[in-house]
Amino acid sequence: MYFVGSDLGGTNIATALVNEKGEIIEKDKRPTEAAYGPEHVIFNMIEAIKRVARDVGMENVVGIGLGIPGLVDIEKGLSIFAGNLSWENIPVMEKFEQEFPKMPLFMDNDVRVATLGEKYFGAGRNVDNLILITLGTGVGSGIIIDGRLYRGTTFSAGEIGHTTIFKDGLYCNCGNRGCLEVYASAPGIARRAREYIRAGHFSKMEGMVGGDLSKITAEVVSKACDEGDRLAMTVMEETAEILGIGIANYIDIINPEIVIIGGGVSLAGDKLFEPLKKTVRRRTMRNAGEKVRIVPAELKDESGMVGAAALAMEGLGVI
Amino acid sequence: MYFVGSDLGGTNIATALVNEKGEIIEKDKRPTEAAYGPEHVIFNMIEAIKRVARDVGMENVVGIGLGIPGLVDIEKGLSIFAGNLSWENIPVMEKFEQEFPKMPLFMDNDVRVATLGEKYFGAGRNVDNLILITLGTGVGSGIIIDGRLYRGTTFSAGEIGHTTIFKDGLYCNCGNRGCLEVYASAPGIARRAREYIRAGHFSKMEGMVGGDLSKITAEVVSKACDEGDRLAMTVMEETAEILGIGIANYIDIINPEIVIIGGGVSLAGDKLFEPLKKTVRRRTMRNAGEKVRIVPAELKDESGMVGAAALAMEGLGVI
Repeated sequence: MYFVGSDLGGTNIATALVNEKGEIIEKDKRPTEAAYGPEHVIFNMIEAIKRVARDVGMENVVGIGLGIPGLVDIEKGLSIFAGNLSWENIPVMEKFEQEFPKMPLFMDNDVRVATLGEKYFGAGRNVDNLILITLGTGVGSGIIIDGRLYRGTTFSAGEIGHTTIFKDGLYCNCGNRGCLEVYASAPGIARRAREYIRAGHFSKMEGMVGGDLSKITAEVVSKACDEGDRLAMTVMEETAEILGIGIANYIDIINPEIVIIGGGVSLAGDKLFEPLKKTVRRRTMRNAGEKVRIVPAELKDESGMVGAAALAMEGLGVI
Repeated sequence: MYFVGSDLGGTNIATALVNEKGEIIEKDKRPTEAAYGPEHVIFNMIEAIKRVARDVGMENVVGIGLGIPGLVDIEKGLSIFAGNLSWENIPVMEKFEQEFPKMPLFMDNDVRVATLGEKYFGAGRNVDNLILITLGTGVGSGIIIDGRLYRGTTFSAGEIGHTTIFKDGLYCNCGNRGCLEVYASAPGIARRAREYIRAGHFSKMEGMVGGDLSKITAEVVSKACDEGDRLAMTVMEETAEILGIGIANYIDIINPEIVIIGGGVSLAGDKLFEPLKKTVRRRTMRNAGEKVRIVPAELKDESGMVGAAALAMEGLGVI
């Protein structure tokens, strides 16, 4: 049995043909080209889907799942809002229904879909209550409760990135201030490193970017840590503590069995995970904090497309 | 059909005979007498249950539900830990099974049971996703997801009282620092008022307690507000902001339809609720924050006993 999962990102569209075991048979990565508007982006997704299904034939594809960034109304098949695409109220599903008239089609938020991928084919196998947190340009999450995706009343459950960590902290695009995302997203980490350097702290990072501080990224911070840069290590430890507070609060509320952490920032590995785990242990209620396991995502950058395919499988009762 | 619900508190045991509509037929309130140990407390509960059932006859009671404070293992019928009773690993259910051998018996955490009471017979009727937050000596909560109580992996979901509001805040008994409960519980509110007065701020409260600051309670702060005391109003507004942050974070994660607020502190009414709602609106993700309703508990101090009876009704499939 074949399924197609397509994961729409701000930069790329990642699409895969997947079997019912979650194994990738064929994959495709192409630019989103969001600047050309929603019609064009959806055309790109459709082309990608056709491409990965070409060898087996579209008639052998059982269902298609879509991961769409931002706020998604899964009942209406609507992208309510996606900041990184400049989308608002785009009837995504309509176009796919026209293109694939008899095909079972499913869509959901990209992080939620990735959560499903990890639950069925990654670090969350056989776990009923779990959270996936993605650390990248934004900080997002998906929640599995009693084995099922929990979406919330208005499809916006799991917005950990906009929980308040600092009461009087920096303003965030969401309208709140002191949001986790402002400090612990990839741009937030880079900004904090830059602020320290501008304030006069010495760091190898300055040399690593040829003196152009705007080129400091979370990846540069991570590399500088590996080279023993003190400031980078401080920024990483602060990141771990801030994230640790947000995740501890999340654990106190959801009491999950595992917390899976994915996204580009998580590739920093143990130098992020070790202090993060310490903060979580110290800040959670003992009973919840002692038992929870904090683990890296297994599917890495494939969790979105595999998860989108899993959404179709789950919708069709195959898994 | 008759059910008995008994709600065990640190100070009192509240017990009711309830019909299947959640109406109280008979009730009993007696001191917990926790100092005499678990056997004695359980004996008191059993006596109270027998008393409320006396007129209709125990043979006409269909099921009994118990609300037990602290961490409860509902599968083993165990009180894992209850700080205000000094209980640890008390096999509560065993004693009740000996006393009522053929009776269907159910137990759960007291706040969770109260949440069930509000869901079936209070402010949460016909709502599938809701939170009940109780503001008293502690700050606790219960979560209903897709119409069912959500307990978490180790029965400790909903611990909003121990989520971190202030990264470097005061230490809490739980081992964390800056917990919501340290600032927004009844003792936390009273302590903050005292600290301001000791720091030299003028307040009517000092006169209200005859100069003995240890007599300032959250209730005194609330009364002083009503009399126009500036400091008391500041303390109340701060409480609303701190609670607002904790509740906004909770809403961002759970995205509930309503948040029900109960417990003694909530009796402060609009002077707490109005600034609290403002903070929640400003701090939540727009989509979740605009739609959520924040309402007072309807069952007031009866939510525990009615909820305990509801636990039995739900367990028996009556509701």
